[in-house]
Amino acid sequence: MSQRNLEPLDVASIREEFPILQREFDGQQVVYLDNAATTQTPDPVVDAMSDYYRESNANIHRGIHHLSQEASRLYEEAHDRVAEFIGADGREEVIFTKNTTEGENLVAYAWGLNELGPGDRVVLTEMEHHASLVTWQQIAKQTGADIEYIRVDADGRLDMDHARDLIDDDTAIVSAVHVSNTLGTVNPVSELTDLAHEHDALSFIDGAQAVPNRPVDVAAIDADFYAFSGHKMAGPTGIGVLYGKQDLLEEMEPYLYGGGMIRKVTFEDSTWGDLPWKFEPGTPQIAEAVGLDAAIDWLEEIGMDRIESHEQELARYAYEQLAAEGDVEIYGPEPGPERGGLVSFNLEGVHAHDLTSILNDHTIAVRAGDHCTQPLHDKLGVAASTRASFYVYNTREEIDKLVAALDDARQLFA
Amino acid sequence: MSQRNLEPLDVASIREEFPILQREFDGQQVVYLDNAATTQTPDPVVDAMSDYYRESNANIHRGIHHLSQEASRLYEEAHDRVAEFIGADGREEVIFTKNTTEGENLVAYAWGLNELGPGDRVVLTEMEHHASLVTWQQIAKQTGADIEYIRVDADGRLDMDHARDLIDDDTAIVSAVHVSNTLGTVNPVSELTDLAHEHDALSFIDGAQAVPNRPVDVAAIDADFYAFSGHKMAGPTGIGVLYGKQDLLEEMEPYLYGGGMIRKVTFEDSTWGDLPWKFEPGTPQIAEAVGLDAAIDWLEEIGMDRIESHEQELARYAYEQLAAEGDVEIYGPEPGPERGGLVSFNLEGVHAHDLTSILNDHTIAVRAGDHCTQPLHDKLGVAASTRASFYVYNTREEIDKLVAALDDARQLFA
Repeated sequence: MSQRNLEPLDVASIREEFPILQREFDGQQVVYLDNAATTQTPDPVVDAMSDYYRESNANIHRGIHHLSQEASRLYEEAHDRVAEFIGADGREEVIFTKNTTEGENLVAYAWGLNELGPGDRVVLTEMEHHASLVTWQQIAKQTGADIEYIRVDADGRLDMDHARDLIDDDTAIVSAVHVSNTLGTVNPVSELTDLAHEHDALSFIDGAQAVPNRPVDVAAIDADFYAFSGHKMAGPTGIGVLYGKQDLLEEMEPYLYGGGMIRKVTFEDSTWGDLPWKFEPGTPQIAEAVGLDAAIDWLEEIGMDRIESHEQELARYAYEQLAAEGDVEIYGPEPGPERGGLVSFNLEGVHAHDLTSILNDHTIAVRAGDHCTQPLHDKLGVAASTRASFYVYNTREEIDKLVAALDDARQLFA
Repeated sequence: MSQRNLEPLDVASIREEFPILQREFDGQQVVYLDNAATTQTPDPVVDAMSDYYRESNANIHRGIHHLSQEASRLYEEAHDRVAEFIGADGREEVIFTKNTTEGENLVAYAWGLNELGPGDRVVLTEMEHHASLVTWQQIAKQTGADIEYIRVDADGRLDMDHARDLIDDDTAIVSAVHVSNTLGTVNPVSELTDLAHEHDALSFIDGAQAVPNRPVDVAAIDADFYAFSGHKMAGPTGIGVLYGKQDLLEEMEPYLYGGGMIRKVTFEDSTWGDLPWKFEPGTPQIAEAVGLDAAIDWLEEIGMDRIESHEQELARYAYEQLAAEGDVEIYGPEPGPERGGLVSFNLEGVHAHDLTSILNDHTIAVRAGDHCTQPLHDKLGVAASTRASFYVYNTREEIDKLVAALDDARQLFA
């Protein structure tokens, strides 16, 4: 394993690549702390897509003309780039989706609808995002499978004893979030995957909050499926990735049908093409693939170890500053390697939406709501929380502004 | 009805907005005649997306901070803009998909899987694109429904007597391409829809080759569903549109599950949100929606009537020039209002792939293959054809270059 580079980021020069961070509302510069919802997109990524449209745009696959060859090469190489970035064996294991949600649905439809039945068990966690929770819940309803949820303990961690109880020989799949988008918890996804495999079950890891923020190696985790989104990792909207082990993807029926995914079509029946195109029917997100490729270049130039370290440091600082306030309830584990770069909290006596609105008066962008984890919020006993989430361009000073602005809310709701 | 404006286009100034059309390979400027695969993207559309990333990027829905409000407004207004452009009643009827193919699959899954059963009939046409043909074929297999294909006659038109025979009281849905991507045929989709409705069946119209090229009014057609793609109408990749009548969309079960499409989620069950968001789970194609909106602005500024007229004139010219060659077989109807802006053909004694490769030596970009209509090509008795397809920036001179280059192929294969 190569030496980790933990040299601090040159945040000032990183910020120069994000014109949006210079924006002002009412004379105040944007403090963007909504990165778990979407990250901002640096100039080189935006330019890569503009250049694609201005220089190489064409439809891909089987194109004989120069532009189509060029676009096909760019699109196919983006798969290779993603494979390399996450430790997949090759482009056959990298399917481009719309977003993480579509990755969950792809597996739920193409594998779940065909393989699940009464008596089968699907094991989720109580901290699943709706993308996973609602999808498996509804596929289970349709197939007669049972759903069980691994408990979250008082510290916001998975109760692994409960996991060992739930994951049994009836279990067909375990679907777990790598890093919770609400609690910040970094889950032991490798251990969960091992538990699944001990019982001949599959594992699906939702890495939407992991791949953008830390080095991820799907082979080391040994996950069967792993999904994430471009727009949360300095890349474009409209593209996500589903990683799947090649032998599983080969065996699976297609998910959507159309051009580009077939081998032979007659009026009577059809046969399917090679991976990964079998799962990418129709004209895909070509410009977005170019943008994702550029985003990976950009992230790797900074270094994923440094990004993880920067975010953990900010999360620790935010946690400590907020905890010192006395009237702030913070959800999820204490700072450390088991917490990603976000902090969800509530200020005593102030609804999260009101607090977020007051923070917006200071042009501080955070998110209020259930963060697509309604059942987890029910369990926490709150309707909503305010979430501050960090990325490479954030600073301690921005967190100071957030903490200082809490006083406004206290005064207004005193 | 407003007066049609058929004033000729100022192609020279239109071309200035497409830097890619200035590209040269081996000292020869690109002649881009592959528009049925994807159109090129004018600067204002590319700039709209870059501006979005540099100024307004944020995740949408329920966002309280300035940027999220701005992004939400842009995303939602793009639905309104599309609704207005195609004559839909409002944003509730406009669902953003990845591409036309996903629109077909959405209806096949969310409506077809639940509504079709043994004895039900799905009526397609022999000229359907794989997006429709393979999708309905496979959904029919899963549900036990029957598939029937309306015959294409020797002139490349639908045999409407056959259509009247096939569309009966057992028919549940009629799915037809508005303009054939292979034959160029403009189908009587309003008449097909009326036939479907006479038998209480639904109609699905694949408008991928229609909306970019002519005025389309879904209300006038009375289609129940209508699908098309952004990247074929001067817009971005990664986004398509499914129009559906509101009452049908209300009744339909969701297609994909996740965040943004739910009302209430518990560990046990979930309920669904309002249209159109019910069918748009996860972070959607926000920048792409901004690009599509800009593309509609751009097209409307030119005028869809003029675009249709320009393309028909080019198609007529290309047809006549090619037909005059003597050794060229052209597929589809003669020039006129029943032919869209494309011509598929074969040169006697030369395989379409070889011909396309020779044309590429002249930097002329056309497409060779089955154009995702394998069964239609089987019926035509050819494995492949060469397709030249036109858009607003194409000229007669480009067609002259194509016709002149055929001589090279003749000499090489003489």
